[in-house]
Amino acid sequence: MGDRKMTVGVYGLGRFGLFWARLLSGRFEVKAYSRTKRDELPAGVTWAGEDDVCACDALFFCVAISAFEDVLGAVRGKVKPPTVVFDTCSVKVFPAGLMERLLDPGVRIIATHPMFGPDSGSAGVAGLPIVMYPVRADRETAGFWKDYFLSLGLQYIEMDPAAHDREAAFTQGITHYMGRVLADLSLKKSPIATLGYRKLLEIVEQTCNDPWQLFLDIQRYNPYTKDMRVNLHRSLEKIYKILDDESK
Amino acid sequence: MGDRKMTVGVYGLGRFGLFWARLLSGRFEVKAYSRTKRDELPAGVTWAGEDDVCACDALFFCVAISAFEDVLGAVRGKVKPPTVVFDTCSVKVFPAGLMERLLDPGVRIIATHPMFGPDSGSAGVAGLPIVMYPVRADRETAGFWKDYFLSLGLQYIEMDPAAHDREAAFTQGITHYMGRVLADLSLKKSPIATLGYRKLLEIVEQTCNDPWQLFLDIQRYNPYTKDMRVNLHRSLEKIYKILDDESK
Repeated sequence: MGDRKMTVGVYGLGRFGLFWARLLSGRFEVKAYSRTKRDELPAGVTWAGEDDVCACDALFFCVAISAFEDVLGAVRGKVKPPTVVFDTCSVKVFPAGLMERLLDPGVRIIATHPMFGPDSGSAGVAGLPIVMYPVRADRETAGFWKDYFLSLGLQYIEMDPAAHDREAAFTQGITHYMGRVLADLSLKKSPIATLGYRKLLEIVEQTCNDPWQLFLDIQRYNPYTKDMRVNLHRSLEKIYKILDDESK
Repeated sequence: MGDRKMTVGVYGLGRFGLFWARLLSGRFEVKAYSRTKRDELPAGVTWAGEDDVCACDALFFCVAISAFEDVLGAVRGKVKPPTVVFDTCSVKVFPAGLMERLLDPGVRIIATHPMFGPDSGSAGVAGLPIVMYPVRADRETAGFWKDYFLSLGLQYIEMDPAAHDREAAFTQGITHYMGRVLADLSLKKSPIATLGYRKLLEIVEQTCNDPWQLFLDIQRYNPYTKDMRVNLHRSLEKIYKILDDESK
Protein backbone atom coordinates (compact mmCIF):
# COMPACT_ATOMS: atom_id res chain seq x y z
CA MET A 1 0.00 0.00 0.00
CA GLY A 2 1.31 3.44 -0.92
CA ASP A 3 0.35 4.89 2.40
CA ARG A 4 1.29 8.50 1.59
CA LYS A 5 -1.78 8.75 -0.61
CA MET A 6 -3.84 6.37 1.51
CA THR A 7 -7.21 7.74 2.58
CA VAL A 8 -8.77 6.82 5.90
CA GLY A 9 -12.41 7.45 6.70
CA VAL A 10 -13.71 8.11 10.20
CA TYR A 11 -17.44 7.52 10.56
CA GLY A 12 -18.79 9.15 13.70
CA LEU A 13 -17.34 12.28 15.32
CA GLY A 14 -18.27 12.05 18.96
CA ARG A 15 -15.63 12.72 21.60
CA PHE A 16 -13.72 9.56 20.69
CA GLY A 17 -14.17 9.90 16.90
CA LEU A 18 -12.67 13.40 16.90
CA PHE A 19 -9.76 12.19 18.99
CA TRP A 20 -9.20 9.19 16.72
CA ALA A 21 -9.41 11.25 13.51
CA ARG A 22 -6.80 13.67 14.86
CA LEU A 23 -4.49 10.76 15.74
CA LEU A 24 -4.83 9.18 12.27
CA SER A 25 -4.26 12.52 10.54
CA GLY A 26 -0.65 12.43 11.70
CA ARG A 27 -0.05 9.93 8.91
CA PHE A 28 -3.06 9.55 6.64
CA GLU A 29 -5.38 11.72 4.62
CA VAL A 30 -8.44 11.58 6.88
CA LYS A 31 -12.02 12.13 5.70
CA ALA A 32 -14.68 12.28 8.35
CA TYR A 33 -18.44 12.06 8.45
CA SER A 34 -20.92 12.28 11.26
CA ARG A 35 -24.71 12.39 11.50
CA THR A 36 -24.38 15.84 13.03
CA LYS A 37 -22.10 18.15 11.07
CA ARG A 38 -19.08 19.41 12.98
CA ASP A 39 -18.12 22.99 12.22
CA GLU A 40 -14.61 22.64 13.60
CA LEU A 41 -12.37 19.76 12.66
CA PRO A 42 -8.78 19.03 13.66
CA ALA A 43 -6.19 20.19 11.11
CA GLY A 44 -5.63 17.45 8.54
CA VAL A 45 -9.17 16.10 8.82
CA THR A 46 -11.63 17.06 6.09
CA TRP A 47 -15.38 16.79 6.23
CA ALA A 48 -16.80 14.46 3.58
CA GLY A 49 -20.09 12.94 2.54
CA GLU A 50 -21.11 9.49 3.70
CA ASP A 51 -20.32 8.03 0.25
CA ASP A 52 -16.79 9.45 0.20
CA VAL A 53 -15.98 8.30 3.71
CA CYS A 54 -17.23 4.78 2.98
CA ALA A 55 -15.08 4.62 -0.16
CA CYS A 56 -11.77 5.32 1.63
CA ASP A 57 -8.98 2.72 1.63
CA ALA A 58 -9.64 2.15 5.32
CA LEU A 59 -12.77 2.98 7.25
CA PHE A 60 -13.02 3.30 11.04
CA PHE A 61 -16.43 3.29 12.69
CA CYS A 62 -16.45 5.40 15.86
CA VAL A 63 -20.13 5.13 16.75
CA ALA A 64 -21.86 3.99 19.94
CA ILE A 65 -21.95 0.21 20.27
CA SER A 66 -25.73 0.32 20.46
CA ALA A 67 -25.91 2.34 17.21
CA PHE A 68 -23.52 0.15 15.23
CA GLU A 69 -26.06 -2.30 13.81
CA ASP A 70 -28.27 0.47 12.38
CA VAL A 71 -25.30 2.41 11.00
CA LEU A 72 -23.77 -0.66 9.39
CA GLY A 73 -27.12 -1.71 7.96
CA ALA A 74 -27.57 1.73 6.42
CA VAL A 75 -24.12 2.06 4.80
CA ARG A 76 -23.25 -1.54 3.91
CA GLY A 77 -24.11 -0.94 0.24
CA LYS A 78 -21.53 1.85 0.06
CA VAL A 79 -18.66 -0.19 1.49
CA LYS A 80 -16.87 -2.28 -1.15
CA PRO A 81 -13.51 -3.98 -1.63
CA PRO A 82 -10.69 -3.05 -1.33
CA THR A 83 -11.81 -1.01 1.71
CA VAL A 84 -10.66 -2.41 5.07
CA VAL A 85 -13.27 -1.87 7.77
CA PHE A 86 -12.50 -1.37 11.46
CA ASP A 87 -14.73 -0.98 14.47
CA THR A 88 -13.35 0.69 17.60
CA CYS A 89 -15.91 -0.63 20.12
CA SER A 90 -15.18 -1.38 23.78
CA VAL A 91 -16.72 -4.82 23.32
CA LYS A 92 -15.64 -7.13 20.53
CA VAL A 93 -17.80 -10.24 19.98
CA PHE A 94 -20.89 -8.21 19.10
CA PRO A 95 -19.41 -5.76 16.53
CA ALA A 96 -17.14 -8.43 14.98
CA GLY A 97 -20.21 -10.60 14.40
CA LEU A 98 -22.16 -7.69 12.92
CA MET A 99 -19.38 -6.81 10.48
CA GLU A 100 -19.01 -10.41 9.33
CA ARG A 101 -22.75 -10.75 8.84
CA LEU A 102 -23.56 -7.41 7.25
CA LEU A 103 -20.56 -6.45 5.12
CA ASP A 104 -19.87 -7.62 1.55
CA PRO A 105 -17.93 -10.91 1.78
CA GLY A 106 -15.01 -9.32 -0.09
CA VAL A 107 -14.57 -6.52 2.43
CA ARG A 108 -11.71 -7.06 4.84
CA ILE A 109 -12.54 -6.68 8.53
CA ILE A 110 -10.31 -5.85 11.49
CA ALA A 111 -11.71 -5.51 14.99
CA THR A 112 -9.93 -3.02 17.25
CA HIS A 113 -10.34 -1.70 20.75
CA PRO A 114 -8.14 1.32 21.42
CA MET A 115 -8.11 1.14 25.23
CA PHE A 116 -7.74 4.87 25.67
CA GLY A 117 -9.42 8.06 24.63
CA PRO A 118 -9.24 11.84 24.82
CA ASP A 119 -8.69 11.78 28.61
CA SER A 120 -6.10 9.02 29.05
CA GLY A 121 -4.45 9.92 25.74
CA SER A 122 -4.36 13.67 26.28
CA ALA A 123 -0.62 13.68 26.94
CA GLY A 124 0.18 11.27 24.09
CA VAL A 125 -0.69 7.67 23.37
CA ALA A 126 2.74 6.02 23.75
CA GLY A 127 2.52 3.01 26.03
CA LEU A 128 -1.27 2.78 25.94
CA PRO A 129 -2.81 -0.53 24.89
CA ILE A 130 -4.73 -1.34 21.72
CA VAL A 131 -6.40 -4.70 21.14
CA MET A 132 -6.64 -5.81 17.50
CA TYR A 133 -7.90 -8.92 15.74
CA PRO A 134 -8.03 -9.65 12.00
CA VAL A 135 -11.59 -10.99 11.75
CA ARG A 136 -11.33 -11.32 7.98
CA ALA A 137 -8.08 -9.90 6.65
CA ASP A 138 -5.01 -11.09 4.78
CA ARG A 139 -1.72 -11.18 6.63
CA GLU A 140 -0.25 -8.22 4.73
CA THR A 141 -3.14 -5.92 5.61
CA ALA A 142 -3.17 -6.98 9.27
CA GLY A 143 0.62 -6.56 9.40
CA PHE A 144 0.42 -3.06 7.92
CA TRP A 145 -1.99 -1.91 10.65
CA LYS A 146 -0.11 -3.66 13.41
CA ASP A 147 3.05 -1.83 12.28
CA TYR A 148 1.18 1.46 12.17
CA PHE A 149 -0.13 1.06 15.72
CA LEU A 150 3.34 0.05 16.91
CA SER A 151 4.77 3.13 15.19
CA LEU A 152 2.53 5.25 17.45
CA GLY A 153 4.22 3.63 20.44
CA LEU A 154 1.03 1.76 21.38
CA GLN A 155 1.16 -1.49 23.31
CA TYR A 156 -0.17 -3.85 20.63
CA ILE A 157 -2.23 -6.81 21.86
CA GLU A 158 -3.67 -9.37 19.45
CA MET A 159 -6.62 -11.09 21.10
CA ASP A 160 -9.70 -12.76 19.64
CA PRO A 161 -13.09 -11.15 20.35
CA ALA A 162 -14.27 -13.77 22.88
CA ALA A 163 -11.01 -13.64 24.86
CA HIS A 164 -11.18 -9.85 24.84
CA ASP A 165 -14.75 -9.78 26.13
CA ARG A 166 -14.05 -12.31 28.87
CA GLU A 167 -11.12 -10.22 30.15
CA ALA A 168 -12.89 -6.90 29.62
CA ALA A 169 -15.97 -8.00 31.56
CA PHE A 170 -13.77 -7.83 34.64
CA THR A 171 -11.08 -5.29 33.85
CA GLN A 172 -13.38 -2.75 32.28
CA GLY A 173 -16.85 -3.90 33.23
CA ILE A 174 -16.24 -4.14 36.95
CA THR A 175 -14.25 -0.88 37.05
CA HIS A 176 -17.00 1.07 35.32
CA TYR A 177 -19.65 -0.65 37.42
CA MET A 178 -17.87 0.25 40.65
CA GLY A 179 -17.24 3.77 39.36
CA ARG A 180 -20.95 4.31 38.79
CA VAL A 181 -21.92 2.83 42.15
CA LEU A 182 -19.39 4.99 43.99
CA ALA A 183 -20.54 8.05 42.04
CA ASP A 184 -24.11 7.30 43.07
CA LEU A 185 -22.90 7.41 46.69
CA SER A 186 -21.62 10.97 46.10
CA LEU A 187 -18.28 10.27 47.75
CA LYS A 188 -16.43 13.42 48.71
CA LYS A 189 -12.86 14.38 49.42
CA SER A 190 -11.95 14.13 53.08
CA PRO A 191 -9.22 15.53 55.32
CA ILE A 192 -8.68 11.99 56.58
CA ALA A 193 -8.62 10.31 53.18
CA THR A 194 -6.38 7.27 53.08
CA LEU A 195 -4.39 6.38 49.98
CA GLY A 196 -6.91 3.65 49.19
CA TYR A 197 -9.83 6.05 49.43
CA ARG A 198 -8.11 8.51 47.11
CA LYS A 199 -7.77 5.68 44.59
CA LEU A 200 -11.51 5.01 44.87
CA LEU A 201 -12.20 8.67 44.07
CA GLU A 202 -9.85 8.45 41.07
CA ILE A 203 -11.82 5.49 39.75
CA VAL A 204 -15.00 7.55 39.92
CA GLU A 205 -13.35 10.40 38.00
CA GLN A 206 -11.92 8.12 35.34
CA THR A 207 -15.05 6.14 34.65
CA CYS A 208 -17.76 8.76 35.03
CA ASN A 209 -16.22 11.13 32.51
CA ASP A 210 -17.29 8.65 29.82
CA PRO A 211 -20.85 8.84 28.47
CA TRP A 212 -23.54 6.94 30.39
CA GLN A 213 -24.41 5.27 27.07
CA LEU A 214 -20.93 3.71 26.92
CA PHE A 215 -21.42 2.35 30.43
CA LEU A 216 -24.74 0.75 29.48
CA ASP A 217 -23.36 -0.59 26.20
CA ILE A 218 -20.29 -2.15 27.82
CA GLN A 219 -22.57 -3.95 30.25
CA ARG A 220 -25.24 -4.96 27.74
CA TYR A 221 -23.22 -5.90 24.68
CA ASN A 222 -20.42 -7.82 26.37
CA PRO A 223 -21.83 -11.34 26.81
CA TYR A 224 -19.66 -11.91 29.89
CA THR A 225 -20.57 -8.91 32.04
CA LYS A 226 -23.76 -10.56 33.26
CA ASP A 227 -21.65 -13.25 34.95
CA MET A 228 -19.37 -10.58 36.35
CA ARG A 229 -22.31 -8.69 37.86
CA VAL A 230 -23.78 -11.86 39.33
CA ASN A 231 -20.40 -12.75 40.88
CA LEU A 232 -19.89 -9.22 42.19
CA HIS A 233 -23.35 -9.21 43.67
CA ARG A 234 -22.70 -12.58 45.32
CA SER A 235 -19.41 -11.39 46.85
CA LEU A 236 -21.05 -8.22 48.14
CA GLU A 237 -23.89 -10.16 49.70
CA LYS A 238 -21.41 -12.59 51.23
CA ILE A 239 -19.38 -9.86 52.98
CA TYR A 240 -22.58 -8.00 53.88
CA LYS A 241 -23.98 -11.10 55.53
CA ILE A 242 -20.75 -11.85 57.43
CA LEU A 243 -20.90 -8.36 58.95
CA ASP A 244 -24.59 -8.66 59.65
CA ASP A 245 -24.13 -11.96 61.45
CA GLU A 246 -21.11 -10.68 63.38
CA SER A 247 -22.98 -7.65 64.64
CA LYS A 248 -25.75 -9.75 66.19
CA MET B 1 7.92 17.73 80.94
CA GLY B 2 11.58 16.76 80.78
CA ASP B 3 11.11 14.61 77.76
CA ARG B 4 14.69 13.27 77.64
CA LYS B 5 13.92 11.05 80.58
CA MET B 6 10.28 10.57 79.67
CA THR B 7 9.13 6.96 79.53
CA VAL B 8 6.49 5.78 77.09
CA GLY B 9 4.73 2.44 77.39
CA VAL B 10 3.41 0.47 74.45
CA TYR B 11 0.80 -2.10 75.41
CA GLY B 12 0.32 -4.65 72.64
CA LEU B 13 2.99 -5.71 70.17
CA GLY B 14 1.15 -6.86 67.09
CA ARG B 15 2.26 -5.64 63.69
CA PHE B 16 1.16 -2.10 64.45
CA GLY B 17 2.39 -2.05 68.07
CA LEU B 18 5.91 -3.04 67.03
CA PHE B 19 5.91 -0.38 64.33
CA TRP B 20 4.61 2.25 66.75
CA ALA B 21 7.12 1.34 69.49
CA ARG B 22 9.98 1.67 66.99
CA LEU B 23 8.73 5.10 65.92
CA LEU B 24 8.43 6.36 69.52
CA SER B 25 11.88 5.01 70.42
CA GLY B 26 13.41 7.68 68.17
CA ARG B 27 12.70 10.14 70.99
CA PHE B 28 11.50 8.41 74.15
CA GLU B 29 12.55 5.59 76.42
CA VAL B 30 10.05 2.96 75.32
CA LYS B 31 8.88 0.05 77.47
CA ALA B 32 6.70 -2.55 75.83
CA TYR B 33 4.44 -5.32 76.98
CA SER B 34 2.33 -7.83 75.11
CA ARG B 35 0.27 -10.86 76.09
CA THR B 36 2.63 -12.97 74.00
CA LYS B 37 6.29 -12.31 74.72
CA ARG B 38 8.31 -11.04 71.77
CA ASP B 39 11.84 -12.36 71.61
CA GLU B 40 13.05 -9.68 69.26
CA LEU B 41 12.36 -6.03 69.86
CA PRO B 42 13.43 -2.96 67.91
CA ALA B 43 16.56 -1.25 69.26
CA GLY B 44 15.58 1.26 71.92
CA VAL B 45 12.51 -0.69 73.00
CA THR B 46 12.77 -2.75 76.18
CA TRP B 47 10.49 -5.50 77.30
CA ALA B 48 8.76 -4.76 80.61
CA GLY B 49 6.11 -6.21 82.88
CA GLU B 50 2.50 -5.05 82.67
CA ASP B 51 2.91 -2.98 85.86
CA ASP B 52 5.97 -1.12 84.56
CA VAL B 53 4.39 -0.36 81.21
CA CYS B 54 1.23 0.96 82.86
CA ALA B 55 3.29 3.23 85.13
CA CYS B 56 5.05 5.06 82.27
CA ASP B 57 4.59 8.81 81.80
CA ALA B 58 2.61 8.07 78.66
CA LEU B 59 0.91 4.82 77.72
CA PHE B 60 -0.20 3.83 74.22
CA PHE B 61 -2.60 0.94 73.78
CA CYS B 62 -2.00 -0.89 70.47
CA VAL B 63 -4.51 -3.71 70.86
CA ALA B 64 -7.37 -4.87 68.63
CA ILE B 65 -10.44 -2.66 68.94
CA SER B 66 -12.49 -5.67 69.96
CA ALA B 67 -9.98 -6.52 72.74
CA PHE B 68 -9.73 -3.01 74.18
CA GLU B 69 -12.57 -3.25 76.71
CA ASP B 70 -11.17 -6.43 78.29
CA VAL B 71 -7.60 -5.11 78.33
CA LEU B 72 -8.61 -1.78 79.83
CA GLY B 73 -10.81 -3.51 82.42
CA ALA B 74 -7.89 -5.71 83.45
CA VAL B 75 -5.25 -2.99 83.81
CA ARG B 76 -7.24 0.05 84.91
CA GLY B 77 -6.09 -0.40 88.53
CA LYS B 78 -2.46 -0.10 87.42
CA VAL B 79 -2.93 3.15 85.51
CA LYS B 80 -2.71 6.22 87.71
CA PRO B 81 -2.03 9.94 87.35
CA PRO B 82 0.15 11.51 86.05
CA THR B 83 0.14 8.91 83.24
CA VAL B 84 -1.40 10.11 79.95
CA VAL B 85 -3.27 7.34 78.17
CA PHE B 86 -3.65 7.03 74.40
CA ASP B 87 -5.54 4.60 72.25
CA THR B 88 -4.50 4.13 68.61
CA CYS B 89 -7.72 2.56 67.28
CA SER B 90 -9.08 3.00 63.76
CA VAL B 91 -12.43 3.99 65.24
CA LYS B 92 -12.74 6.69 67.87
CA VAL B 93 -16.15 7.01 69.56
CA PHE B 94 -15.99 3.53 71.07
CA PRO B 95 -12.45 3.57 72.59
CA ALA B 96 -12.79 7.22 73.75
CA GLY B 97 -15.95 6.27 75.61
CA LEU B 98 -14.29 3.21 77.15
CA MET B 99 -11.31 5.21 78.40
CA GLU B 100 -13.53 7.89 79.93
CA ARG B 101 -15.69 5.29 81.62
CA LEU B 102 -13.03 2.86 82.85
CA LEU B 103 -9.97 4.93 83.73
CA ASP B 104 -9.36 6.75 87.02
CA PRO B 105 -10.89 10.24 86.71
CA GLY B 106 -7.48 11.85 87.28
CA VAL B 107 -5.88 10.04 84.33
CA ARG B 108 -5.50 12.20 81.23
CA ILE B 109 -6.84 10.74 78.01
CA ILE B 110 -5.93 11.48 74.40
CA ALA B 111 -7.56 9.62 71.51
CA THR B 112 -5.37 9.10 68.44
CA HIS B 113 -5.71 7.43 65.10
CA PRO B 114 -2.39 7.16 63.29
CA MET B 115 -3.73 6.69 59.75
CA PHE B 116 -0.79 4.61 58.62
CA GLY B 117 1.09 1.53 59.62
CA PRO B 118 4.05 -0.68 58.78
CA ASP B 119 3.09 -0.83 55.08
CA SER B 120 2.23 2.78 54.30
CA GLY B 121 4.89 4.04 56.70
CA SER B 122 7.68 1.72 55.58
CA ALA B 123 9.51 4.51 53.74
CA GLY B 124 9.01 7.07 56.52
CA VAL B 125 5.97 8.70 58.06
CA ALA B 126 6.44 12.31 56.88
CA GLY B 127 3.28 13.64 55.28
CA LEU B 128 1.05 10.86 56.64
CA PRO B 129 -2.02 11.88 58.64
CA ILE B 130 -2.68 11.38 62.34
CA VAL B 131 -6.00 12.24 63.96
CA MET B 132 -5.83 13.32 67.60
CA TYR B 133 -8.35 14.54 70.15
CA PRO B 134 -7.79 15.50 73.81
CA VAL B 135 -10.68 13.60 75.39
CA ARG B 136 -9.59 14.61 78.88
CA ALA B 137 -6.29 16.45 78.87
CA ASP B 138 -4.94 19.85 79.80
CA ARG B 139 -3.80 22.17 77.03
CA GLU B 140 -0.09 21.78 77.87
CA THR B 141 -0.18 17.99 77.60
CA ALA B 142 -2.17 18.03 74.39
CA GLY B 143 0.18 20.69 72.99
CA PHE B 144 3.23 18.62 73.84
CA TRP B 145 1.94 15.61 71.90
CA LYS B 146 0.72 17.69 69.01
CA ASP B 147 4.22 19.19 68.73
CA TYR B 148 5.79 15.75 68.91
CA PHE B 149 3.61 14.42 66.07
CA LEU B 150 4.35 17.55 64.03
CA SER B 151 8.07 17.03 64.67
CA LEU B 152 7.76 13.64 62.96
CA GLY B 153 6.47 15.44 59.86
CA LEU B 154 2.99 13.99 60.32
CA GLN B 155 -0.07 15.77 59.00
CA TYR B 156 -1.77 16.63 62.30
CA ILE B 157 -5.59 16.64 62.28
CA GLU B 158 -7.58 17.48 65.42
CA MET B 159 -11.05 16.01 65.08
CA ASP B 160 -13.56 14.88 67.69
CA PRO B 161 -14.41 11.17 67.86
CA ALA B 162 -17.88 11.45 66.29
CA ALA B 163 -16.63 13.58 63.38
CA HIS B 164 -13.79 11.12 62.84
CA ASP B 165 -16.10 8.11 62.77
CA ARG B 166 -18.54 9.76 60.38
CA GLU B 167 -15.72 10.55 57.93
CA ALA B 168 -13.96 7.23 58.45
CA ALA B 169 -17.13 5.21 57.81
CA PHE B 170 -16.76 6.31 54.20
CA THR B 171 -13.08 6.95 53.66
CA GLN B 172 -11.88 3.86 55.47
CA GLY B 173 -14.99 1.72 55.86
CA ILE B 174 -16.00 1.75 52.23
CA THR B 175 -12.43 1.28 50.99
CA HIS B 176 -11.89 -1.78 53.17
CA TYR B 177 -15.34 -3.11 52.34
CA MET B 178 -14.69 -2.80 48.60
CA GLY B 179 -11.21 -4.27 49.04
CA ARG B 180 -12.65 -7.38 50.69
CA VAL B 181 -15.40 -7.75 48.10
CA LEU B 182 -12.95 -7.42 45.22
CA ALA B 183 -10.58 -9.88 46.92
CA ASP B 184 -13.44 -12.35 47.21
CA LEU B 185 -13.87 -12.05 43.43
CA SER B 186 -10.22 -13.16 43.00
CA LEU B 187 -9.47 -10.40 40.48
CA LYS B 188 -6.35 -11.07 38.50
CA LYS B 189 -3.86 -9.00 36.55
CA SER B 190 -4.73 -8.73 32.88
CA PRO B 191 -2.86 -7.85 29.68
CA ILE B 192 -5.70 -5.45 28.90
CA ALA B 193 -5.89 -3.83 32.34
CA THR B 194 -6.99 -0.21 32.19
CA LEU B 195 -5.58 2.36 34.60
CA GLY B 196 -8.83 2.21 36.58
CA TYR B 197 -8.63 -1.56 36.90
CA ARG B 198 -5.05 -1.36 38.14
CA LYS B 199 -6.25 1.05 40.82
CA LEU B 200 -8.91 -1.47 41.87
CA LEU B 201 -6.19 -4.12 42.25
CA GLU B 202 -4.10 -1.71 44.34
CA ILE B 203 -7.06 -1.19 46.67
CA VAL B 204 -7.26 -4.94 47.21
CA GLU B 205 -3.54 -5.10 48.02
CA GLN B 206 -3.67 -2.18 50.41
CA THR B 207 -6.69 -3.27 52.36
CA CYS B 208 -6.28 -7.04 52.47
CA ASN B 209 -2.78 -6.89 53.94
CA ASP B 210 -4.41 -5.77 57.20
CA PRO B 211 -5.79 -8.42 59.57
CA TRP B 212 -9.34 -9.67 58.95
CA GLN B 213 -10.05 -8.75 62.58
CA LEU B 214 -9.29 -5.09 61.85
CA PHE B 215 -11.74 -5.19 58.95
CA LEU B 216 -14.48 -6.62 61.16
CA ASP B 217 -13.73 -4.20 64.00
CA ILE B 218 -13.78 -1.14 61.75
CA GLN B 219 -17.19 -2.18 60.50
CA ARG B 220 -18.63 -3.21 63.85
CA TYR B 221 -17.25 -0.58 66.22
CA ASN B 222 -17.77 2.48 64.05
CA PRO B 223 -21.40 3.48 64.65
CA TYR B 224 -21.63 5.01 61.17
CA THR B 225 -20.50 2.12 58.97
CA LYS B 226 -23.91 0.47 59.12
CA ASP B 227 -25.40 3.49 57.29
CA MET B 228 -22.52 3.40 54.83
CA ARG B 229 -23.16 -0.28 54.07
CA VAL B 230 -26.88 0.28 53.67
CA ASN B 231 -26.20 3.21 51.29
CA LEU B 232 -23.62 1.22 49.33
CA HIS B 233 -26.00 -1.70 49.06
CA ARG B 234 -28.76 0.61 47.85
CA SER B 235 -26.53 2.17 45.17
CA LEU B 236 -25.40 -1.24 43.99
CA GLU B 237 -28.95 -2.49 43.74
CA LYS B 238 -29.96 0.67 41.91
CA ILE B 239 -27.29 0.29 39.20
CA TYR B 240 -27.89 -3.48 39.08
CA LYS B 241 -31.58 -2.91 38.49
CA ILE B 242 -31.01 -0.27 35.80
CA LEU B 243 -28.88 -2.77 33.87
CA ASP B 244 -31.36 -5.53 34.45
CA ASP B 245 -34.25 -3.45 33.14
CA GLU B 246 -32.22 -2.21 30.18
CA SER B 247 -31.34 -5.72 29.10
CA LYS B 248 -34.97 -6.80 28.90
